[in-house]
Amino acid sequence: MALSSVLLDQAVDQLASLPGIGRRTAMRLALDLLRREVPEVVRFSEAVRRLREEVMYCSECCNISDRPICEICSDQARDRSMVCVVEDIRDVIAIENTRQYKGLYHVLGGVISPMDGVGPDELHVKELLARVGQGGVKEVVLALGATLEGDTTAFYLHRKLDGTGVLVSVIARGISVGGDLDQADEATLGRSIADRKPYHHAQRR
Amino acid sequence: MALSSVLLDQAVDQLASLPGIGRRTAMRLALDLLRREVPEVVRFSEAVRRLREEVMYCSECCNISDRPICEICSDQARDRSMVCVVEDIRDVIAIENTRQYKGLYHVLGGVISPMDGVGPDELHVKELLARVGQGGVKEVVLALGATLEGDTTAFYLHRKLDGTGVLVSVIARGISVGGDLDQADEATLGRSIADRKPYHHAQRR
Repeated sequence: MALSSVLLDQAVDQLASLPGIGRRTAMRLALDLLRREVPEVVRFSEAVRRLREEVMYCSECCNISDRPICEICSDQARDRSMVCVVEDIRDVIAIENTRQYKGLYHVLGGVISPMDGVGPDELHVKELLARVGQGGVKEVVLALGATLEGDTTAFYLHRKLDGTGVLVSVIARGISVGGDLDQADEATLGRSIADRKPYHHAQRR
Repeated sequence: MALSSVLLDQAVDQLASLPGIGRRTAMRLALDLLRREVPEVVRFSEAVRRLREEVMYCSECCNISDRPICEICSDQARDRSMVCVVEDIRDVIAIENTRQYKGLYHVLGGVISPMDGVGPDELHVKELLARVGQGGVKEVVLALGATLEGDTTAFYLHRKLDGTGVLVSVIARGISVGGDLDQADEATLGRSIADRKPYHHAQRR
């Protein structure tokens, strides 16, 4: 599909390089941008460029941050003995929204995925081990996705943390709150039965 | 959802301003851009900015073009007595790909849609009327979408072109080539029956 404009062609190419955006959608997005006022498109363009050029990562938890040590890590009210290991900032936001966790985080920046060429060296694993090595951390909570990659990463971290003296825990898998048993997949339901708890214990919050 | 970074927040806002992109998808796109090398993201940002800042429109057909008169309009081998009216550049590409049309185009830049505040003045209608007024055009082919807005626009243009002496035609609606009758909607099948042609005529290409 050769376009009548190199400018349009290049913009469509770039937009189509985004994950989940095909050339047809990219063309729709480009035409939408063309219908906007120039300053509005400049703001769009600048927001994307500045994000990449000026982004900083918290030197403690490796989360995206506007300052050298992020808000969570610098909050002295948080429990510094717990570190919850997550894949990326989306998981931090999701857990923060539950208001159930008062410890710190460690953002890996991905999960181990040999298919995508992502090994432990591509993730913030050594930063996690250094943090644990400094002392003070009593529990590392692995909050990774229930996928092959998430499980592989959890297994790898568990092995690496073995012998450091910290408790390594994983978040519970089971029937979702409000979920019907017959709607759950077999693996989840099986895990949910195997990981059952005494009634009184389960009702406690 | 407050993010730990104003930079990320702004980039997500901008990406989520694109049609069909929600905040969740926008976050996924922003994290993808963050994983790229800086020069790659600068190329992305520049392609979008340059598209809007440097875009030109053909002074004859109003299509997006890198030069004052587009490739199609400057091609002397094309039939200058026919002008095919379309909504945007995507339709030009689609029709060009059929290799069935050798006339010129006129790109409206949209269709009449009172709901979206788009009236004839927002479209390149007066440019079309001026082109027809200059003489030389014998047929205007309306190739607009089979939607309420497309039909409204076709009706409006037909009225405006009435009395100019040019033939105003519309592209055929009917069962798609390779399409089953029982798969077609009633309106299309009904139109297809009403617009039937003598067998020998229909087989001719």
